[in-house]
Amino acid sequence: MLPISDLDPKSAAPLYRQVYQQIRELISNGRLKNGFRLPATRELAGQLGLNRTTISAAYELLEHDGLIAGHVGRGSFVAAPPRQGGLNWNQLLDCKEIATTPSAATISFSASRPSELLFPIPEFRACCEEVIAGPDVQTILQLGSPAGYGPLRRYLLEQARAEGAARDSDDILITSGCQQAFDLLQRILAANGETVVVEDPVYPGARNAFQRARARVMGVPVGPEGIDLAALEHLLNSEHPRLLIVTATFQNPTGATMPPAARERLLSLASRAGTVVIENDIYGPLAYEGGTPATLKQLDPSGDTVLLRSFSKLAFPGLRVGWVIGPRPLIQKLTEAKQWSDLHSDQLSQAVLLRFAESGRLETHRQHVLQTGGERLQATLDACRLYLPPGTEWTHPRGGMNLWVRLPQPLDAGELLPRAERAGVSYLPGKYFAVGTADPNALRLSFAGLTPEEIETGIRTLGRIFTTELERVRAASPLEATALV
Amino acid sequence: MLPISDLDPKSAAPLYRQVYQQIRELISNGRLKNGFRLPATRELAGQLGLNRTTISAAYELLEHDGLIAGHVGRGSFVAAPPRQGGLNWNQLLDCKEIATTPSAATISFSASRPSELLFPIPEFRACCEEVIAGPDVQTILQLGSPAGYGPLRRYLLEQARAEGAARDSDDILITSGCQQAFDLLQRILAANGETVVVEDPVYPGARNAFQRARARVMGVPVGPEGIDLAALEHLLNSEHPRLLIVTATFQNPTGATMPPAARERLLSLASRAGTVVIENDIYGPLAYEGGTPATLKQLDPSGDTVLLRSFSKLAFPGLRVGWVIGPRPLIQKLTEAKQWSDLHSDQLSQAVLLRFAESGRLETHRQHVLQTGGERLQATLDACRLYLPPGTEWTHPRGGMNLWVRLPQPLDAGELLPRAERAGVSYLPGKYFAVGTADPNALRLSFAGLTPEEIETGIRTLGRIFTTELERVRAASPLEATALV
Repeated sequence: MLPISDLDPKSAAPLYRQVYQQIRELISNGRLKNGFRLPATRELAGQLGLNRTTISAAYELLEHDGLIAGHVGRGSFVAAPPRQGGLNWNQLLDCKEIATTPSAATISFSASRPSELLFPIPEFRACCEEVIAGPDVQTILQLGSPAGYGPLRRYLLEQARAEGAARDSDDILITSGCQQAFDLLQRILAANGETVVVEDPVYPGARNAFQRARARVMGVPVGPEGIDLAALEHLLNSEHPRLLIVTATFQNPTGATMPPAARERLLSLASRAGTVVIENDIYGPLAYEGGTPATLKQLDPSGDTVLLRSFSKLAFPGLRVGWVIGPRPLIQKLTEAKQWSDLHSDQLSQAVLLRFAESGRLETHRQHVLQTGGERLQATLDACRLYLPPGTEWTHPRGGMNLWVRLPQPLDAGELLPRAERAGVSYLPGKYFAVGTADPNALRLSFAGLTPEEIETGIRTLGRIFTTELERVRAASPLEATALV
Repeated sequence: MLPISDLDPKSAAPLYRQVYQQIRELISNGRLKNGFRLPATRELAGQLGLNRTTISAAYELLEHDGLIAGHVGRGSFVAAPPRQGGLNWNQLLDCKEIATTPSAATISFSASRPSELLFPIPEFRACCEEVIAGPDVQTILQLGSPAGYGPLRRYLLEQARAEGAARDSDDILITSGCQQAFDLLQRILAANGETVVVEDPVYPGARNAFQRARARVMGVPVGPEGIDLAALEHLLNSEHPRLLIVTATFQNPTGATMPPAARERLLSLASRAGTVVIENDIYGPLAYEGGTPATLKQLDPSGDTVLLRSFSKLAFPGLRVGWVIGPRPLIQKLTEAKQWSDLHSDQLSQAVLLRFAESGRLETHRQHVLQTGGERLQATLDACRLYLPPGTEWTHPRGGMNLWVRLPQPLDAGELLPRAERAGVSYLPGKYFAVGTADPNALRLSFAGLTPEEIETGIRTLGRIFTTELERVRAASPLEATALV
């Protein structure tokens, strides 16, 4: 017999809940051990003088908690007793995911980030020293404003106004990198399952920030000229989504850039649909040739486009400073959300990056990054042409950090990755960036962090692996493979 | 007649939605202006050959969007047309809140933070210089791990293990201050309306992080010896809450500290209820007399308590570095959430604070803070005794930054604040910290940021205002006032 003590029919807690709580306690204090068979509902109902449905309801709650498991025809068993006096963390947390181990590849095309070898360390040190010797150091070390460090906010907003990327009706919020901007936008504009349109493939951090908060994330294909406008128009008209997130310049992962006319068309479509455009412009300043196209924000006649920028791709990703420029009512709401997320962004880095920018060192560094970036991009394009097997396609970006490669059928970039890693080279397969069905042939090559020599060696290695596999498959089923290419 | 074009009965979009979308577009492209009277549902139904309920459904959606407003007996009118091609941000954002303007008071008891005049600037500069001259500077400036800067994580975890505040089964996550720890815990443990128990009154940042995410936040009163255990036991037994957030040492806002026996009782109650205990220990290192009590985490036989700490109260609040120590499966989940919140915390500040701690400068500074803090606390207690009107009660903390004052009836701390501010002194009324019904007589005095002289002057001014008001009220209705005191 279960040691259930007297129930109180006059209690605010219904009887089934009282039964549930008593059994729960018997399990958590170890009196009912893992594997213990609970009495049948009819039996316990008889013992306690209760209705059988009351017992069933109590058992259902226990099952929902993962504390008991029912087996048809055999009854219910204690299933997952916590340690003595302890919590069952795996049950509380719904632990299913397994952390991926980072690749040990020596040449990694996996990360869309600058090379640390290019960091201008002496200039960074000078900025730090100017900040810590400066008159504002006490203010920087004291609790600050959720909106960001005042002098940096003013500097960035003035810069944006001067280039037509901020209106008088706009304001600015400093975020802890661009990733936090996505997170805050989700909280303020897509907290209730709203529809959010992103590019497909897309930077996974943008997709995840919305998907994990249960927004309805829908993808629109990206071609060499950016987001597919016909597909976008269809989606905007049929769904009137809340948000459209777009990287018009040197998109991650494809490297695609939208032509000016496509930008204007996108703005007009979004405006008609009442959809807020979020422009991720973190790669915009990295135009190696042909100049930087005007941002959506600059082109937008309504001024409603929300512009995201960051120092991370241009300067130091380890200093987490990005910013959002948008209409004042939105920035006010985002600032409130920022406050209850983390009070405010780190002020030392804000001050150091302000010094880096206003001293002209950022622009000098950018010129250097443009030169080396152009060389790296060229090395990547050359190596793709030289080494990748016939039938491979790749994008031809003119800036940014990424290139999108489509292997000939039936090569699967995900399946081939372990082989590449064993040969010392890594990349990210297309599936990491997919919103809808992933393209198994696709992969991203992030070239900015590697030297031209590493790029050449790495792509030569990849080319050898892909070519070998292609020959193997074609030898195995020549007709099928030919038909597919 | 409304210019509604042909509807498509075979479309996937139902007819009422097609009507809604067409009218929506007529409004957003400016063809239907603000104030335009829409045809009656019967009239439009006739025009389009549709059922009247179809039109009503379309109008309902428009009304829901805030685009039209219905007036009984007069029909429906276009109500809030966006600017030409622009979005209606106020409608999108549900703008109701108005930003509070900061007080211009010269003596502010409002902020629970250290005085910037006490910041050890030369030592901070030395740490910065050591970091930027050190061998790890490239790593610090490069993209880092979501879990935090490795050397800082290892240092803090070893420190915690040495003092028995971390088990072998525990791990650590660096957060952007303690506020972000609350935010991440909400995402992982209370994302679906779970019940979260907090102290009442409580630090508003903790309450807000959960309440804004629609958790069911319930308060348990805090007395001079911390959280009310009888009320807590009742709540734990009846609600089996997911989380219990508690500041056992120098609680904000009351300054209350739980005795050791109460801590053990709390742990046992929470363990029986299957409730996760989150211990906010950011004030623990600030014991001006009587030493630092053992944390819940140290006392917890199960080891399940989750410990939150930060450098903000001890060192520099403008550098946003806090940390969470808890069971490994939880830390793993929090780290994932951290990654999609902001990738990782700023690494420059993490490295500088690590240098500050491991060089011994933090401990030297802490000794200085303990001495000045003790003087400031004493000045606060002395001034309360000297100047506050008879019948006033206040807590007697032995550390931390805050003291809780209850004015005699019928004084209302919120109503009296503008008068205090005009006299150059500010504080926060009790309502800012309330979970349930606020105590109108209560207010918080945060003393750590003020010199003993400022404290004396400030509380003397407050005492004069409170005494004057009390005398005025008693003169106005002597019987009632006497009865209340």
